[in-house]
Amino acid sequence: MTQNNNQVEECLDFTPKFDSNALIAAIAQDAKTGQILMVAYMNKEAIDLTIQTGYATYFSRSRQKLWKKGEQSGHLQKVEQMLVDCDQDCLILKVTVDAGQCHTGHQSCFYRAVENGKLKFIAQKNYDPKKAYKKS
Amino acid sequence: MTQNNNQVEECLDFTPKFDSNALIAAIAQDAKTGQILMVAYMNKEAIDLTIQTGYATYFSRSRQKLWKKGEQSGHLQKVEQMLVDCDQDCLILKVTVDAGQCHTGHQSCFYRAVENGKLKFIAQKNYDPKKAYKKS
Repeated sequence: MTQNNNQVEECLDFTPKFDSNALIAAIAQDAKTGQILMVAYMNKEAIDLTIQTGYATYFSRSRQKLWKKGEQSGHLQKVEQMLVDCDQDCLILKVTVDAGQCHTGHQSCFYRAVENGKLKFIAQKNYDPKKAYKKS
Repeated sequence: MTQNNNQVEECLDFTPKFDSNALIAAIAQDAKTGQILMVAYMNKEAIDLTIQTGYATYFSRSRQKLWKKGEQSGHLQKVEQMLVDCDQDCLILKVTVDAGQCHTGHQSCFYRAVENGKLKFIAQKNYDPKKAYKKS
């Protein structure tokens, strides 16, 4: 372990480590239940906007632009707490949410388990994405 | 949304989407408490070994080799369930653990919160990493 690693791990400076695309992974976790809702990516501007507004903003890799979660569906994520890991290359957003967070209609993007080499649905949809996204 | 996206999101085939380095992000979450312990990466071989052995194996990006979590510290992760997200580019391992999971001595790698542009420790160390790693 280098001195540099020790500094990053023990320090009180927030120095997020962005990848080669200038992004950092961010896990949205339900602040109340602990359920992991989704994983997305943030650039520096997304982090700044999230902190300034109190609502999660990500950077969409597919659309290559900032994306305030819920801007179309109305399913915003109110950020209660932001955590960073030891080497500062991953964030957790502890969020309060009102409805399903996955664009498929599920509460969480993680609605399938891997079992015996196949997938098994472990959750049902709890909103109709066609209605939620018709504004777009 | 393309037909291909729909197929990936609704299907029962486990087709993990690896990044340009042939890796997929994996979140280790305490199966009992819901606490997020760490985020690491897996290649296909790591996934296969995890499924075969029932214990989490990752691919270390810094060491560029397979890494059975706890092989040095003894702090193994027994995998109770593996989940995959809608676009199959991220995994959750729901794990049972006996002791701290971060090499710094904390239970979780996420032991600091971001507050007012600085970091704040929100957890204390619960084991001595110098003792745990002296075998290496």
